Amino acid sequence: MSNDQKWDQLAERLAEIDDLEHAIALLGWDQQTYMPAGGAEARGEQMATIERVVHQRFTDPAVGQLLEDLAADAAALPESSHRASVWRVVRRRYDRATKLPEDLVAEMARTSARAFDTWVKARAANDFTMFEADLTHQVDLARQQTDHFGYEDTPYDALLAGYEPNLTSADVDRLFNPLRDRLVPLLDSLRPVLDRINDDALRGDLPHDAQIALTEDIVTLVGFDFKTGRQDLAAHPFTTSIGHGDTRVTTAVDPRNLAPALYASIHEAGHGTHDQGIPAELRRTAVGQVESLVIAESQSRLWENLVGRSRGFADHLLPYLRKHFPGKFGPLEAGTLYAAGSYVEPGYIRVQADEVTYSLHIFLRYEIERELIEGRLAVTDLPERWWSGMKSLLGVEPTTDADGVLQDVHWSSGAIGYFPTYALGTLLSVQLYEAALADDASIQPALEAADFAPLLAWMRQHVHRHGAAWSAAELVTRELGVELSADPFLDYLETKYRALYNL
Amino acid sequence: MSNDQKWDQLAERLAEIDDLEHAIALLGWDQQTYMPAGGAEARGEQMATIERVVHQRFTDPAVGQLLEDLAADAAALPESSHRASVWRVVRRRYDRATKLPEDLVAEMARTSARAFDTWVKARAANDFTMFEADLTHQVDLARQQTDHFGYEDTPYDALLAGYEPNLTSADVDRLFNPLRDRLVPLLDSLRPVLDRINDDALRGDLPHDAQIALTEDIVTLVGFDFKTGRQDLAAHPFTTSIGHGDTRVTTAVDPRNLAPALYASIHEAGHGTHDQGIPAELRRTAVGQVESLVIAESQSRLWENLVGRSRGFADHLLPYLRKHFPGKFGPLEAGTLYAAGSYVEPGYIRVQADEVTYSLHIFLRYEIERELIEGRLAVTDLPERWWSGMKSLLGVEPTTDADGVLQDVHWSSGAIGYFPTYALGTLLSVQLYEAALADDASIQPALEAADFAPLLAWMRQHVHRHGAAWSAAELVTRELGVELSADPFLDYLETKYRALYNL
Repeated sequence: MSNDQKWDQLAERLAEIDDLEHAIALLGWDQQTYMPAGGAEARGEQMATIERVVHQRFTDPAVGQLLEDLAADAAALPESSHRASVWRVVRRRYDRATKLPEDLVAEMARTSARAFDTWVKARAANDFTMFEADLTHQVDLARQQTDHFGYEDTPYDALLAGYEPNLTSADVDRLFNPLRDRLVPLLDSLRPVLDRINDDALRGDLPHDAQIALTEDIVTLVGFDFKTGRQDLAAHPFTTSIGHGDTRVTTAVDPRNLAPALYASIHEAGHGTHDQGIPAELRRTAVGQVESLVIAESQSRLWENLVGRSRGFADHLLPYLRKHFPGKFGPLEAGTLYAAGSYVEPGYIRVQADEVTYSLHIFLRYEIERELIEGRLAVTDLPERWWSGMKSLLGVEPTTDADGVLQDVHWSSGAIGYFPTYALGTLLSVQLYEAALADDASIQPALEAADFAPLLAWMRQHVHRHGAAWSAAELVTRELGVELSADPFLDYLETKYRALYNL
Repeated sequence: MSNDQKWDQLAERLAEIDDLEHAIALLGWDQQTYMPAGGAEARGEQMATIERVVHQRFTDPAVGQLLEDLAADAAALPESSHRASVWRVVRRRYDRATKLPEDLVAEMARTSARAFDTWVKARAANDFTMFEADLTHQVDLARQQTDHFGYEDTPYDALLAGYEPNLTSADVDRLFNPLRDRLVPLLDSLRPVLDRINDDALRGDLPHDAQIALTEDIVTLVGFDFKTGRQDLAAHPFTTSIGHGDTRVTTAVDPRNLAPALYASIHEAGHGTHDQGIPAELRRTAVGQVESLVIAESQSRLWENLVGRSRGFADHLLPYLRKHFPGKFGPLEAGTLYAAGSYVEPGYIRVQADEVTYSLHIFLRYEIERELIEGRLAVTDLPERWWSGMKSLLGVEPTTDADGVLQDVHWSSGAIGYFPTYALGTLLSVQLYEAALADDASIQPALEAADFAPLLAWMRQHVHRHGAAWSAAELVTRELGVELSADPFLDYLETKYRALYNL
């Protein structure tokens, strides 16, 4: 068989896997949007079955053989060529997928299903001890995985790489340490003046349907295309790709507060425009999906924070508020709206955190995950460790387990190593945003005129068009000529929040 | 390996296939309800891929071997036992699935995708000649299939059996001939007095959301359970099962006419309660899905016509109309509402046809399909044949192709042999309804009190609980001790419509 035929054979297998994965994506989207309660058990079985079929077909030794046979061909191609990218991405995924023994994979699936259930109950009962045994087992399974995956410095690196290609703890430390070192003092300097700003402007009697209509206008404004996508309601907003031309974003409405729906919608529209920007010719190949969670989060954070929470955006937002809530926002000034969207309040809950405190929540989770995986912390000591960390990083006093260590779903499903990508994506968002504005002088005036197309076009060209070809570190080097860095983010935050709070 | 282990192995394979088929069902449901327009092409690929995976895994020689190995065991069991039913259903499906060569299956899939597209365009352009080549190819592929499937009397039988187990043209003729012989005179006798009744009572300015709220009340009233199901909008209403505990019905709203949404909802709720009635223990086995389209249609027709279009139901419906359309239905009398729901009008369109004329539309399609498959009619002569049939059966004059031979989607997707099940299901609905009322004296008074639970319970017990274990012919013999017959339906129609039109 010729190499071209082998590339075709590989492409065919990847297209099939891509189709199956998008079926799982739709099953998952539906589970969180429209599925009736009675369908939960069958849905779990369906998703597990297709996951298993995908795993079998992807880890088929024939795939490994094709990768071997095509290695020299791929190495001879420019690394930015489509085939070289496919080879690189598939090689990485194949190696990870084949390193875990079947019985460990099965035990992980069983444990995750059970632990999720336990977590829901423990959170409702506000009792960490109910979750302790399952979480202990998840940590143990994660440590077993690290043995199979292998690592150089710390077993935690083997987990990190599952969410961001080749990411190591050394990379994270290099970025997170300055983050903590400048964020904690920034927060301390704001602490005495926090009451200068509040979010009252975004609260009130704000009917559900009007909020939905508003968010549809806003996500359209920032470039999300409803011909190739839709927005629905979900308890925990997310974005998912159902294949080329079909991107689903979600939002959640609090009829007494506009902020959750508004910022969730803009955040998810950032993911959505990212998915909609992946070129058709990459689809149904391994390079046609979003793989780096850092790059993914850079897009959502960019639109949510750097655009959505900017002073200029408040000017654009105000007419929409007045349109969708007649009589409600008449006297409001854009400056007050801007402040309401950016007010700072050290709190318990990560997903409700502001721009200043958000990364501190992540930092705590990162420290704890490493301690658990490196055997320096026992699960039973987790609540105490949590509250001492919350106190030193955020200055908040212990409260209930539900608002503490039980607040996030991730660990229940065995997702350890995921959290750092949230903060790293936020750092990258500022680097990309500033590079875009420096690179194309038309972007800033366009933003001031509520024209987001030039900024989106820059992201299409420098981020989206690559699909999964590059990790975040590779992307920032190739496109920006620099390394991932926390400084632009910290400079941005300090400038914005010192001004906002009149320091 | 012991036989028990082999049964387990078979069950495991069937559960996997069931999960994959339900993923296809969700992909299809979403395609017709929420999918953005841009997702169409990818969706087609996804569904084709999973169909192919299902086909490969089901036609795996290992499945055939298990069937062979378990044949004696199955034959020794009572035929109503679960294992015997599984064996019987899987044997039949396996034989059909393995009889077609792979390249014919692939060609059928390609042709159906293309022909559907052509049909949409031809119907929009109102031009049969655009569709002629693709339809000719579909007929040719159908004839090729009949050669592979085999048949005794006519090749058409090989196609019929794909929609109703073991159904033959001889069965259809035995039922359809009296149908035609009594329906045509009934319609002729009504013709001079058709203007005695109209459907004005169901027309007016009837807002979309109020129609949806009404239909939700009505499908709940007849027993559809929203904890294990939901109702959405679809251009062409349908029902689909997404697995145990998850049944999806759909409806379509005309804001100037209540009839389409109301009767579509009740019709689909009939399918929906059927699916919801399949016992949990049959799920994820081959017996846990609805396979006989005649039985399926008996349930939808029963609720739509025998319940929904009954005089008694008009009494129950009226308060709901007044609740959801305040001020609109105040002076309306239940008798007028009943008449509006049952008015007769010989027309062009099958899906809009009344109880009297509906089966005549089916009869025409059945005749034409046989003529095409038996080589007695050329596709190019189809429009002429269509109009001569419409004239003799329904007395309507030729009009456009779009309202004639292009009105139905079925042939574009190669579904030849499907139509008869619509009429046969209607016949069965009357047999089942009358048997239920004769068998349980509490049903009639309950119906009069708007309590549909006893009727539904009877269907659960005598129809739903069997899943796919029996064909329609087997079911009616086993449960009612009779054969499928057109007489009860014809007696019912003649009695109802002579009274309604004062003949």
